[in-house]
Amino acid sequence: MQPISSFNDLTSHLAEANCRKKLAVANAIDSHTLEAVLMAVEAGIVEAYLVGDVAAIESPELFEKPSILPFIHIVDKPEVQEATLEAVRMVKEGEADILMKGLVNTDVILRAILDKEKGLLPSGNVLTYNAALEIPGYHKLLFFSDPAVIPYPTLEQRKAMIKYAINTCRKFGFTHPKVALIHATEKPSPKIMFMQDYLDIMQMWRMGEFGDVIMDGPLDIFLALDNERGSIKNVPTPVLGDADVLIFPDFAAANVFYKGVALFAGAQMGGILQGTSKPCVLTSRSESSLSKFYSIAVACILA
Amino acid sequence: MQPISSFNDLTSHLAEANCRKKLAVANAIDSHTLEAVLMAVEAGIVEAYLVGDVAAIESPELFEKPSILPFIHIVDKPEVQEATLEAVRMVKEGEADILMKGLVNTDVILRAILDKEKGLLPSGNVLTYNAALEIPGYHKLLFFSDPAVIPYPTLEQRKAMIKYAINTCRKFGFTHPKVALIHATEKPSPKIMFMQDYLDIMQMWRMGEFGDVIMDGPLDIFLALDNERGSIKNVPTPVLGDADVLIFPDFAAANVFYKGVALFAGAQMGGILQGTSKPCVLTSRSESSLSKFYSIAVACILA
Repeated sequence: MQPISSFNDLTSHLAEANCRKKLAVANAIDSHTLEAVLMAVEAGIVEAYLVGDVAAIESPELFEKPSILPFIHIVDKPEVQEATLEAVRMVKEGEADILMKGLVNTDVILRAILDKEKGLLPSGNVLTYNAALEIPGYHKLLFFSDPAVIPYPTLEQRKAMIKYAINTCRKFGFTHPKVALIHATEKPSPKIMFMQDYLDIMQMWRMGEFGDVIMDGPLDIFLALDNERGSIKNVPTPVLGDADVLIFPDFAAANVFYKGVALFAGAQMGGILQGTSKPCVLTSRSESSLSKFYSIAVACILA
Repeated sequence: MQPISSFNDLTSHLAEANCRKKLAVANAIDSHTLEAVLMAVEAGIVEAYLVGDVAAIESPELFEKPSILPFIHIVDKPEVQEATLEAVRMVKEGEADILMKGLVNTDVILRAILDKEKGLLPSGNVLTYNAALEIPGYHKLLFFSDPAVIPYPTLEQRKAMIKYAINTCRKFGFTHPKVALIHATEKPSPKIMFMQDYLDIMQMWRMGEFGDVIMDGPLDIFLALDNERGSIKNVPTPVLGDADVLIFPDFAAANVFYKGVALFAGAQMGGILQGTSKPCVLTSRSESSLSKFYSIAVACILA
């Protein structure tokens, strides 16, 4: 398999496979969510189940194209909580492959996902967020964790986070992904939070814990992503300027990084929850329809 | 005074003032530092004292222009430590207005700056780093702290950091700067580090501690810097999309943010130490000559 190195590559790859995934959307009534779902239906990658308050749908005329109608199903559930539980149930019971959040508060849908009996998180699994970034100026997709779900990962959580990211890279055709453990500096110091965890992770990597991948850290952003600026530092690293995965020290660093490049470098993001039994798309209101569409595409390749 | 909203504005403003500041450079022998110093001399904003090993200067031919020769003085100090102490002494004793690091390890020059007797940090002052960022796509210069010096600020250090940044904004002609306390989310939660400090800072601001400025936080990057994406969140804030100052929760967040926008959005940075009795330019090896030049310009307006 040729590695998938852009979101365009990804959607073409999925369309060529000609196998629509079933997407259950909890309360898909807002136009941003609907636009994204329609893009995914039109791209030929999903068949959508809109679970929610039919009467509240913002732009019903969006569905009127005959070419997409066969792939849109409405499940009328006027109450948000009820719609959310029904969408989760459909995914849990195999009637759908992917869960997506529409106009639902994040804590409501997270509670449904985390429910021990009726939810989607297998016991013992770590729930985290992983996203692919397409940054104009970077030569491939870049996966990163975690801007939202785990504020300050424990060592065990970070291990799980890295394994999910590696697994995702593999689905995109990167057989030997390069993982960078990112920090403000490449110099480990006991006074700096998470540096010891980084050193422990590096030791586990040397012992084979993460399989056939390249890993280095702590590294700063220049060393991980830019050959030229990285080289000036004279720090030898096999990742130099070519990282596939960025693991950030905490959610604040991950969050400001992606929002900075989204805002000023036109980066697009497609992200999903990791650790669940089926892919879950939980984008935030401030994300564009295009980002939500890319998130659906990332979910499709993992479903 | 018309606010200075780009580095070009800044250097024109300084050149028009027609008052060269005296710059003492510790071990200015590497070409990156020399290029930056020469740019500043040519721009008419400094007169330079190159304190260091004359025999080791990488590109002596750079000085041969008659127009700049009168503004370059060589102080031969073959030994790095000695050169550093001499440059610090010149600034301390008023023979120079600004200290700049050349090819010296950061810890060596910091030790000289921090020396209680012979250094440049008045007793009780907080030493931190503040920089101006010029990001193509943002409508003005953006000041931020602290990507390098204080990894995890205490409440007192953060207060000082904010005051320095406000003072710097005022020198640039922004009389009512907008300060954003940045985090991954705008929702305060006791589980999130530094959120309590942000709430305390907001309370101090309401009590007048920071003078006539606009402040809000916690805010995420979108709320602070982008009207459109910020508005979608429906979080009312007087800073919305128009911040002058970003205070990051810790140095990792500040560091990955500026390196991301430098790498992928072509942002340029000019930064200096704050808290010292005279401005100190301590750029890192991986910064461009242009960034070093902009750092000198920022130091000039504060000198």
